[in-house]
Amino acid sequence: MDPENSLRIMPDSLKAFCARIFERHGISVEDAATVADSLVEADVRGISSHGVARLGAYLGELRAGYIQPRAEVQVVSETPVIALIDGGGGLGQPISKRAMQLAMHKASELGAGFVTVRNSNHYGTASYYAMMALEQQMIGISMTNAAPLAVPTFGRDAKLGTNPISVAAPAGKERPFVLDMATSTVSLGKLEVYDRTETPLPLGWATDETGQATSNAARVIHNMNRRDGPLHGGLLPLGGVGELLGGHKGYGLALMVDILSGVLPGAGYADNMYLADEEGRGLPANVGHFFGAFRIDAFRPVDEYKAAMDDLILRVKTSPKAAGQARIYIHGEKEFETTEESQRNGILLHPAVVASLRAISGESGVPFEDESARHTG
Amino acid sequence: MDPENSLRIMPDSLKAFCARIFERHGISVEDAATVADSLVEADVRGISSHGVARLGAYLGELRAGYIQPRAEVQVVSETPVIALIDGGGGLGQPISKRAMQLAMHKASELGAGFVTVRNSNHYGTASYYAMMALEQQMIGISMTNAAPLAVPTFGRDAKLGTNPISVAAPAGKERPFVLDMATSTVSLGKLEVYDRTETPLPLGWATDETGQATSNAARVIHNMNRRDGPLHGGLLPLGGVGELLGGHKGYGLALMVDILSGVLPGAGYADNMYLADEEGRGLPANVGHFFGAFRIDAFRPVDEYKAAMDDLILRVKTSPKAAGQARIYIHGEKEFETTEESQRNGILLHPAVVASLRAISGESGVPFEDESARHTG
Repeated sequence: MDPENSLRIMPDSLKAFCARIFERHGISVEDAATVADSLVEADVRGISSHGVARLGAYLGELRAGYIQPRAEVQVVSETPVIALIDGGGGLGQPISKRAMQLAMHKASELGAGFVTVRNSNHYGTASYYAMMALEQQMIGISMTNAAPLAVPTFGRDAKLGTNPISVAAPAGKERPFVLDMATSTVSLGKLEVYDRTETPLPLGWATDETGQATSNAARVIHNMNRRDGPLHGGLLPLGGVGELLGGHKGYGLALMVDILSGVLPGAGYADNMYLADEEGRGLPANVGHFFGAFRIDAFRPVDEYKAAMDDLILRVKTSPKAAGQARIYIHGEKEFETTEESQRNGILLHPAVVASLRAISGESGVPFEDESARHTG
Repeated sequence: MDPENSLRIMPDSLKAFCARIFERHGISVEDAATVADSLVEADVRGISSHGVARLGAYLGELRAGYIQPRAEVQVVSETPVIALIDGGGGLGQPISKRAMQLAMHKASELGAGFVTVRNSNHYGTASYYAMMALEQQMIGISMTNAAPLAVPTFGRDAKLGTNPISVAAPAGKERPFVLDMATSTVSLGKLEVYDRTETPLPLGWATDETGQATSNAARVIHNMNRRDGPLHGGLLPLGGVGELLGGHKGYGLALMVDILSGVLPGAGYADNMYLADEEGRGLPANVGHFFGAFRIDAFRPVDEYKAAMDDLILRVKTSPKAAGQARIYIHGEKEFETTEESQRNGILLHPAVVASLRAISGESGVPFEDESARHTG
């Protein structure tokens, strides 16, 4: 770590800073608070790839006009159970929060609610929305499509997004189950870490420009950055190359997410998003999302459900370990433990992120380091 | 192949035979037709592991009293959108067909419908129910939990079922998308094929009794057949051993299916199913299922949706192939092609399956080989 730039900062301070930055870029106070909360909560949970490291990218898209700061969010079609929302090309987070709230409102009335979204943008972590259901004793679902970075099984070119799926289900005495997974084996961010440290990739993460599995991270990233043409090679679906270890299953899940969050609401899908006009200028992305909620007590009493959830979790967690392993995790458990650490000691920001935040602070005149920030190292 | 017992038979003849066999075992005419159709349609689609090869096992469970022939199926709780059905311990197929029909009825009225089921049994292929949605211009969803055969990431013992997920979505000129995947890397049936042919397993399919990945199919199957105690080792989740290639994601999907189809309806889950009483006699399994349907035109006009589906499918299918590969498949495509072949030339039954059907025919006095059956080889 670079001691000059390593920094711990309390989550609320970081949220306040990010919110003010978004406000300076024309975002309403309410929406700025939402997107700031979404980014910082990712850091709080230890998912730094989706945290404030992305602030600069969001601002760049706002400045370039790819994201509309004052988007009009409209309900296009609706029944008591489902809705389709047009996000007007705005920031993904405020649109998605409203969509998930609408799904939960429908679930509170009739037991289930589903809302799909079109004309949106990157929405941060999928689990941010699925977890909104937990406090209302609901099971939450969240999916999004994304820029094409993953290859279909037997294909050469990146045609599908990392298309994540999140499902959050409350428990009783145990922590909730929070699944949040890309349908590719890994995310692009993980490849970039291997590239920076010049570590060979495990075979099963990515393919080269011929479609073969490769351990060469630099080569994959070079191929994927050639944005002027089709993306040759890319991330592999969960299950790896071919069908032998189930790569067709990860590929199928990616298609499923693209159908539910892209095709069903009328958003972009596959490589039919993040397009450019005839002069090569990027067009709005038209990202699509899918949100759902089930109210547990529409099915069975919440206390019975919670007792069964605790029993399921304990049966799995406390079962004998494989040789050499000390612990079986339930999904979300690692992030809940990181959250406790972040709330107690602050978020430890990577030096490169600190440098980018200082630069943003300098440009905008919004002070970054308040009394809660402290240097480490 | 054993020429003595290799046989091609037309699907309708095989359905009629199976239906009569189930009727002889106390199943109503309507329910017998449903379970016969489900089994034979699996063979028609080339999924022989879930076809008539299982007939003997179903009859054994009926005779042993694990499956109730005249089960009372009851709706336990219901809203205009969701329902919980108690299957009364009957055959999984008739219960599941009714549950999916109810989900579709709700979707036809309000745009979406979801039905969970408890006190059921093995329901055959997951896609049988998801595909019911296709003709009504709906997207269908089907999941079930199952006997514990798969290990959690970092765990030693089989605690979770192969817990499949199926999603079926109609297209326009293209064939529908039909995903039907176990959340383990492979099914037990595939291991049994490798065992019979003494082929080493690919690492990533299964673990031995210490929790290490193993290529020894016989050893895995030996461990898993020790039904008297905990199952040491088992199938690996999609993504394989540990977290490096995403095994925790397949494990998370298996938990998600267990929550939605086991915990939510109040069915069994994890290794809390297929239990025995104090004297070692098996108790009814209490399998749980989850069904859902989305009516497409509640979201957007069906013709717009279908045009986008066709475009998505063609963008992926016709994209450049990896070196050495001739074709990119969409999920369900292989099975639709096998269906055309089966409807034209009949189902080619494995000699061991033919032998088992002849034995069932002999015991029950129901003739098996009608004029449509012909020998091959």
